[in-house]
Amino acid sequence: MSARPETPLLDRVHTPADLKQFSDAELVQVAHELRSETVSAVSETGGHLGAGLGVVELTVALHAIFDTPRDKIIWDVGHQCYPHKILTGRRDRIRTLRTKDGLSGFTKRSESVFDPFGAAHSSTSISAALGFAVARDLGGQCDGGLGDAIAVIGDGSISAGMAYEAMNNAGHLNKRLFVVLNDNEMSIAPPVGAMSAYLSRLYAGDPFQEFKSAAKGAVSLLPEPFREGAKRAKEMIKGMAVGGTLFEELGFSYVGPIDGHDMDQLLPVLRTIHQRATGPVMLHILTKKGKGYAPAERARDKGHATAKFDVLTGKQHKTPSNAPSYTSVFGNALVNEAARDDKICAITAAMPDGTGLNLFAERYPSRCFDVAIAEQHGVTFSAALAAGGMKPFCTMYSTFLQRGYDQIVHDVAIQRLPVRFAIDRAGLVGADGATHAGSFDVAFLANLPGMVVMAAADEAELVHMVATAAAHNDGPIAFRYPRGEGVGVDLPEQGTPLEIGKGRMIQKGARVALLSFGTRLEEVKKAAESLATKGITPTIADARFAKPLDADMILELAANHEALITIEEGAVGGFGSHVAQLLAESAVFDTGLKYRSMVLPDIFIDQANPKDMYDVAAMNAEQIESKVLATLGVAQIGSKSA
Amino acid sequence: MSARPETPLLDRVHTPADLKQFSDAELVQVAHELRSETVSAVSETGGHLGAGLGVVELTVALHAIFDTPRDKIIWDVGHQCYPHKILTGRRDRIRTLRTKDGLSGFTKRSESVFDPFGAAHSSTSISAALGFAVARDLGGQCDGGLGDAIAVIGDGSISAGMAYEAMNNAGHLNKRLFVVLNDNEMSIAPPVGAMSAYLSRLYAGDPFQEFKSAAKGAVSLLPEPFREGAKRAKEMIKGMAVGGTLFEELGFSYVGPIDGHDMDQLLPVLRTIHQRATGPVMLHILTKKGKGYAPAERARDKGHATAKFDVLTGKQHKTPSNAPSYTSVFGNALVNEAARDDKICAITAAMPDGTGLNLFAERYPSRCFDVAIAEQHGVTFSAALAAGGMKPFCTMYSTFLQRGYDQIVHDVAIQRLPVRFAIDRAGLVGADGATHAGSFDVAFLANLPGMVVMAAADEAELVHMVATAAAHNDGPIAFRYPRGEGVGVDLPEQGTPLEIGKGRMIQKGARVALLSFGTRLEEVKKAAESLATKGITPTIADARFAKPLDADMILELAANHEALITIEEGAVGGFGSHVAQLLAESAVFDTGLKYRSMVLPDIFIDQANPKDMYDVAAMNAEQIESKVLATLGVAQIGSKSA
Repeated sequence: MSARPETPLLDRVHTPADLKQFSDAELVQVAHELRSETVSAVSETGGHLGAGLGVVELTVALHAIFDTPRDKIIWDVGHQCYPHKILTGRRDRIRTLRTKDGLSGFTKRSESVFDPFGAAHSSTSISAALGFAVARDLGGQCDGGLGDAIAVIGDGSISAGMAYEAMNNAGHLNKRLFVVLNDNEMSIAPPVGAMSAYLSRLYAGDPFQEFKSAAKGAVSLLPEPFREGAKRAKEMIKGMAVGGTLFEELGFSYVGPIDGHDMDQLLPVLRTIHQRATGPVMLHILTKKGKGYAPAERARDKGHATAKFDVLTGKQHKTPSNAPSYTSVFGNALVNEAARDDKICAITAAMPDGTGLNLFAERYPSRCFDVAIAEQHGVTFSAALAAGGMKPFCTMYSTFLQRGYDQIVHDVAIQRLPVRFAIDRAGLVGADGATHAGSFDVAFLANLPGMVVMAAADEAELVHMVATAAAHNDGPIAFRYPRGEGVGVDLPEQGTPLEIGKGRMIQKGARVALLSFGTRLEEVKKAAESLATKGITPTIADARFAKPLDADMILELAANHEALITIEEGAVGGFGSHVAQLLAESAVFDTGLKYRSMVLPDIFIDQANPKDMYDVAAMNAEQIESKVLATLGVAQIGSKSA
Repeated sequence: MSARPETPLLDRVHTPADLKQFSDAELVQVAHELRSETVSAVSETGGHLGAGLGVVELTVALHAIFDTPRDKIIWDVGHQCYPHKILTGRRDRIRTLRTKDGLSGFTKRSESVFDPFGAAHSSTSISAALGFAVARDLGGQCDGGLGDAIAVIGDGSISAGMAYEAMNNAGHLNKRLFVVLNDNEMSIAPPVGAMSAYLSRLYAGDPFQEFKSAAKGAVSLLPEPFREGAKRAKEMIKGMAVGGTLFEELGFSYVGPIDGHDMDQLLPVLRTIHQRATGPVMLHILTKKGKGYAPAERARDKGHATAKFDVLTGKQHKTPSNAPSYTSVFGNALVNEAARDDKICAITAAMPDGTGLNLFAERYPSRCFDVAIAEQHGVTFSAALAAGGMKPFCTMYSTFLQRGYDQIVHDVAIQRLPVRFAIDRAGLVGADGATHAGSFDVAFLANLPGMVVMAAADEAELVHMVATAAAHNDGPIAFRYPRGEGVGVDLPEQGTPLEIGKGRMIQKGARVALLSFGTRLEEVKKAAESLATKGITPTIADARFAKPLDADMILELAANHEALITIEEGAVGGFGSHVAQLLAESAVFDTGLKYRSMVLPDIFIDQANPKDMYDVAAMNAEQIESKVLATLGVAQIGSKSA
């Protein structure tokens, strides 16, 4: 571990109000110290580094000028909030980031009054800020009071439709509201889309000097020294029929772009708009992700997410992996399928690396589509690709697929179009916590008529499911798999399409049947080993399909066992509920069956490592064993949980 | 019934290819006849009139110039597709619109090869058109072949984030693609939002003559006679730093606005862009909703949706109602609550009339927010209003709430913010068919930790649930109610908050307990009356809550009856699944219970009247009775269904 940095000024900041004591020059120094402290903290915890480093100056400037927590700063996504946490009374816990019982890696209302609105999914900040601004004007009351609302949103996040919807509404309502567009040309991956190109054009000329401020009196929002240039800019576009920037056309006063690392620009501009704004203001700042920490600046992902690392060298301490990740297994399997079928194409919403599609994009760039943070569009675009005879793999994390739910229903399922949904991050995900859990996809997909829903029990199964999805061209199909490493099984060279709606028997036993859907299968096997020492040999089956169910197999399990227990990495309403419906309508319950369904509990589970999270969920081997014993009515001695 | 109009030219059109035989002057006449035929047809069927009348000329022009079905015309929402259906081989069935076994009121892939992509929810057309354009360039194959893709989208629909996401992606991919922006300043209600104001400014000067075409060679896309004006426009904005319109900034060549009812403008402009476009083109046309039919033009909603009517007078033949609609009961109840609590506010996504919030907006305009077609933003905006101490009622149709699902999970439920979801159009909805069914909300809401989910059994219950939601300030709460009239019960002057998680007993009986969630209760009562004549008196209970369940009541019903049958207007995964989970984990099934769960079947049900749709779903009184008899093993004589 490196020595902690010297931070004499930062040490005097216990709440943001303490920043008011400093001169502008001292605030520059505070920012410098805050950057060092952030690097030092993340070197110990791992986490999101680049985003925070890019907004160190902005964080200091906003807290110095605005009156938090009365004024509400809303950090879009929240990856960039570590410096904010350090300034807002959480410095003493900053080295617990993203660990069990530690600070969240995102903003979180329950953590601090300085986090007025939690984030983690992108592009919610303008909506949230507008809500606070309206609540303020309607006399709403909340912890800390209600003053100004400031959304800080990246150029990647602003590509999402939701941000546009919010700007459209904000321009219409015309409330005093601040949006800081933090433009670093980099979200998780380099941003794509026409908006990104547009933003580049905005400062193509002379990035840090030209102020565009044509419409609606934005000139008056500029501090005095900048007025001259702004007036010139206004002259330039005088007389034009359709004036100003895209943001002005949506009703914002647009100011910028300015250098977001230069406090001599940031402080006076913020002070002026703070003083003079009456309606919505868009302040466009240019920053560098990873700014000020050379290893991050040099990295391809600008230090987006990092393991623990050595501060001096930037070298990350990564644990060696025992098996390939599900994500990379998926990526490779899809490349293999695409080599044999030129109709296969792939869609990602700004997550080429996270989804493993980077492999596909390298090999088949013309068939890989990064649609930007735009899940709604991504799903319907996939639907039309399918209608046009292609075989699209719409590849999203479970939690982000929620963004495209209506499109799945309306454009895919109702039209029975063969879109393949590759759903990564199914189940609990670890350090990203509750906002990133993939808990609901089985429930929200498996009740759609015509949808096929699979879950991979291990990485070899995943390869077969990719092949199954490629082969299934008669309606939509989805398959889910978790974050992290596989279990280490041998991978087939080539996947073999599974028979739709057929599960597989893993082990024949007696009294109790354990019916697993997904990667809890390994825990089920462990539980069975332990149960065997107690004289109970459970039958084990891998359902493979939540829809259509393998009714024959399930009814046979029910008929031949005293108890049937389902287990899945998802909330109630999913696999187990479909099994229960089958059993009910087949009159199985009429004569008695010890049926149980192990699902994620009815709580949002905070970040920890996945094993600990599944302990909270009571879904690890030990708890499965307890469940079996309790269901069979076998006495347990010294059991930790039921 | 009025006499059918004379349509000598239209009579010669059996497929769109037949339009190629006509001169431009004759096409004007075809449009005239098509308008008359549309009015005549809708006068017999009822349905969406205004939207179709606004695009009669566009429909004729597109089919005359493009090569459908090889070229794909995608009508956003689809309300405006009746003239298109008349031209594309469905004239003989046009008077079956929106009836059982008749034509859908929307475009529908299964209905015609000329409907390449179904619609009903708004703002999907650009995504779909882009998908077809990409599939074409990747060698995809589909019925009719793959040529050009043309999205026709209204100024209301383009306010949705999804449309922006699609434009952002289209501008980036730069494929040949056509978007016709059909700007009638009116979707269902007058459009709101900054985009709407922006569009107005675009033609504030001289609507039908000025062509703005600054960037990217759009001038070359204009037909010869228009070149001069376009060049002048280009001169005007020469030298400006950030040029062109919002659409050009997103990478489109922008042409317009032109008069969408003037074939002398429409035909040459379409011919030219058809001939010359290489990338995405946005053609902005101005139209009048209801154009050419005076009663529609005069109507406040421009003939958006109409009952059957008399063509000469425009007088609608409305069936007198026996009871107020759930929608109006909700609207009035909310006004009452708001009178007593100034923190209550309301949010609609462009549906003030459809949701009954027009009543609220009249009384409390400053507390009513129409966010435009922007459900994602609407939900998160509501969440922040709640965080700011307001009591927001986020009022949406069940099917449209799907658009805001991720925001419900991420911004509302995880943060446990007291947003009240008023969910209209729960269950099957009649003439709008499968795309508008509210089938999934209970499943996708009730498994969210901390969410309260209610369904009203009648309109008095709805009043109480509005009061319950107003009073419940400790987390999110949702209540659902169907389309159409209530059952005619007396309405309370003032709602009384219900105890959270408590159901109510309706009737004590024996052997079988019928546990209803929602408005099937009336059918359950009818079934019980009929069963009584056969010696079976069922117990009847109204669950009121799918979450939290009234576990005491349900376990008591299970303990004291041979059979327990749940019924709900929703898909599997919802109320019945939560009941099954309770029963399973309470070991009720261990000793046997004839448990059944009546849910919507695993099909998308086509339009018909709601009674007929529930017959298809097997959820009317007769089928409930059959279910009871079958479950109890009582022989049925002459039963129609099981």
